[in-house]
Amino acid sequence: MGNWEANIRKVVPYVPGEQPKEQDIIKLNTNENPYPPAPEVLNKQVELENLRLYPDPAATKLVDAIAEYHGVDKNQVFVGVGSDDVLAMSFMTFFNSGKPIFFPDITYSFYDVWADMLRIPYETKPLDADFRIKASDYYGENGGVVFPNPNAPTGIAEPVEFVRDIVSHNPDVIVIVDEAYVDFGGQTALPLLKEFDNLLVVRTFSKSRSMAGLRIGYALGNEKLIGYLNDVKYSYNSYTMDLTSIELGTCSIKADDYFKEMVKKVVDTRTWFVKEIEALGFTVLPSSANFVFATHKTIPAKEIFENAREHKIFVRYFDKPRIDNYLRISIGTDKEMQLFVAFLKTLL
Amino acid sequence: MGNWEANIRKVVPYVPGEQPKEQDIIKLNTNENPYPPAPEVLNKQVELENLRLYPDPAATKLVDAIAEYHGVDKNQVFVGVGSDDVLAMSFMTFFNSGKPIFFPDITYSFYDVWADMLRIPYETKPLDADFRIKASDYYGENGGVVFPNPNAPTGIAEPVEFVRDIVSHNPDVIVIVDEAYVDFGGQTALPLLKEFDNLLVVRTFSKSRSMAGLRIGYALGNEKLIGYLNDVKYSYNSYTMDLTSIELGTCSIKADDYFKEMVKKVVDTRTWFVKEIEALGFTVLPSSANFVFATHKTIPAKEIFENAREHKIFVRYFDKPRIDNYLRISIGTDKEMQLFVAFLKTLL
Repeated sequence: MGNWEANIRKVVPYVPGEQPKEQDIIKLNTNENPYPPAPEVLNKQVELENLRLYPDPAATKLVDAIAEYHGVDKNQVFVGVGSDDVLAMSFMTFFNSGKPIFFPDITYSFYDVWADMLRIPYETKPLDADFRIKASDYYGENGGVVFPNPNAPTGIAEPVEFVRDIVSHNPDVIVIVDEAYVDFGGQTALPLLKEFDNLLVVRTFSKSRSMAGLRIGYALGNEKLIGYLNDVKYSYNSYTMDLTSIELGTCSIKADDYFKEMVKKVVDTRTWFVKEIEALGFTVLPSSANFVFATHKTIPAKEIFENAREHKIFVRYFDKPRIDNYLRISIGTDKEMQLFVAFLKTLL
Repeated sequence: MGNWEANIRKVVPYVPGEQPKEQDIIKLNTNENPYPPAPEVLNKQVELENLRLYPDPAATKLVDAIAEYHGVDKNQVFVGVGSDDVLAMSFMTFFNSGKPIFFPDITYSFYDVWADMLRIPYETKPLDADFRIKASDYYGENGGVVFPNPNAPTGIAEPVEFVRDIVSHNPDVIVIVDEAYVDFGGQTALPLLKEFDNLLVVRTFSKSRSMAGLRIGYALGNEKLIGYLNDVKYSYNSYTMDLTSIELGTCSIKADDYFKEMVKKVVDTRTWFVKEIEALGFTVLPSSANFVFATHKTIPAKEIFENAREHKIFVRYFDKPRIDNYLRISIGTDKEMQLFVAFLKTLL
């Protein structure tokens, strides 16, 4: 055996939330949508004979549908294999100055993983005592800024003026706003695209569109940003979006009534659920997402997490400073949330 | 407008072969398979309701099917979004020493693109006068070796002893053998995996399996190599393989009789086609792939390329030193190749 191991890029990989294979589990651990994709998606017949051909490398059909939906030019749309692919490519493309990028200390747990893997220096900025992002933390010299809005795993949304504040203080770098959860009650930064050419807004089909299994994410930004991003994408893999993603993704974005209805159902369930668990002694951060972040006044989060797991209810627990007494609970169907509440009542 | 453009990673992107949208084109330019995927794939009902859930991040079903097919352990299999994704991740993971990697001067045109994008130094080694790779060129100190076997766009295959020669001279780096076209007549390096822990063999579903539209590639290597590769993959995007790729890919690899039959048809058509165009004054490099690389004694390749295009026949022309008088012609159906031969007869 040679010494080849010395020259390998070694990383501590991201550990995704568990994907249990049993059927009878109440799965509230990865912020999936409890409702199926739109009927238009389920009924779509993809012509599988065409799989013999390469897909359209530009995913034109999907890009056009997204552009039309948001009322932007098609040159302002980038698509990727889930928003993780879009964000990773964006890190690679835009966070290239050698200066540290800034993001919150409590946030999507992939940001530091990408920074480490791509050797991008970074500084985390602590959330305040109410778990809010402080805009002024992002004023200083940096190599770029990224944060989710609503933030994860807190679920807290900031208004568009907050985003404007950060973007306008950072004219020389790219500011990425990760709007994975915005459809559940956040304010989008999309109107700012007309004002700022250094803003990138990232979205996903995995949450509000019930399409986590298909891997579609996208970014909206000015033409030049999207051009640079596409150059890197074409230099990495020309054909990332497969035929089924292009076809079914296009159906999904056009099914707007269904989309709004499902989002409303999730939001209504969240409202009910929050009241229920507050009555049981939980403190719940104000959520604009399809999950809530909650802590109980007496029972440690870890204990609830482990107990729930034994009862085949999966929620997410992060063994990290400041949030190790919180649970992130995805919003499922009414039935699932009722069962979870019933479980909590038994436990307490 | 700020100075953000200064800090962006700027690359010269790979330009994929044209994907014309017209229907009546004879498309012999991107080495696609002229036959549809296996009936088992076409008839598979993917449960689209499940798209609401994240796919299995380990793509266990597909990985197990590939492992069984090749008689290796499942820990020896890595899957990605086409072999381009597998190769790009491999470059990122394994070509990390700072020393130049080696690959042929005439080869898959993505290698230098990945090296440039990932800032990996490289040296190209010229093919000999017969367009063969010289094993001894790869003996010197380097940061890794990659070559396709059969090579592209030449189509020339080297025997397994040739691969052994290169791998055994490079115990301290990873040697990647890109076997995208091996099913059409090459000798696979897979038996060498038992001897060498620094060998990675990369395959694709896009050619011999008629699944270019679904984006599935894979790598086989020793458990440790695959482990490092998975660490990087999980640090980039945990969920790269979507539900349809996992389900339809698994069906495809199990449909072995159909697979062998289609490969034989392509090889038989190639044999017939080579004789035909040799009779018309072409010199054809000995091909073990689903394409041929050919040059005509009097008419310049570029002229044939442009003329064919006007007649709605797309082949591939590379405007590069040494090969700018060659055409790469994918093997289509008998009918398509007959039409192409008829076109050539008219032209000559």
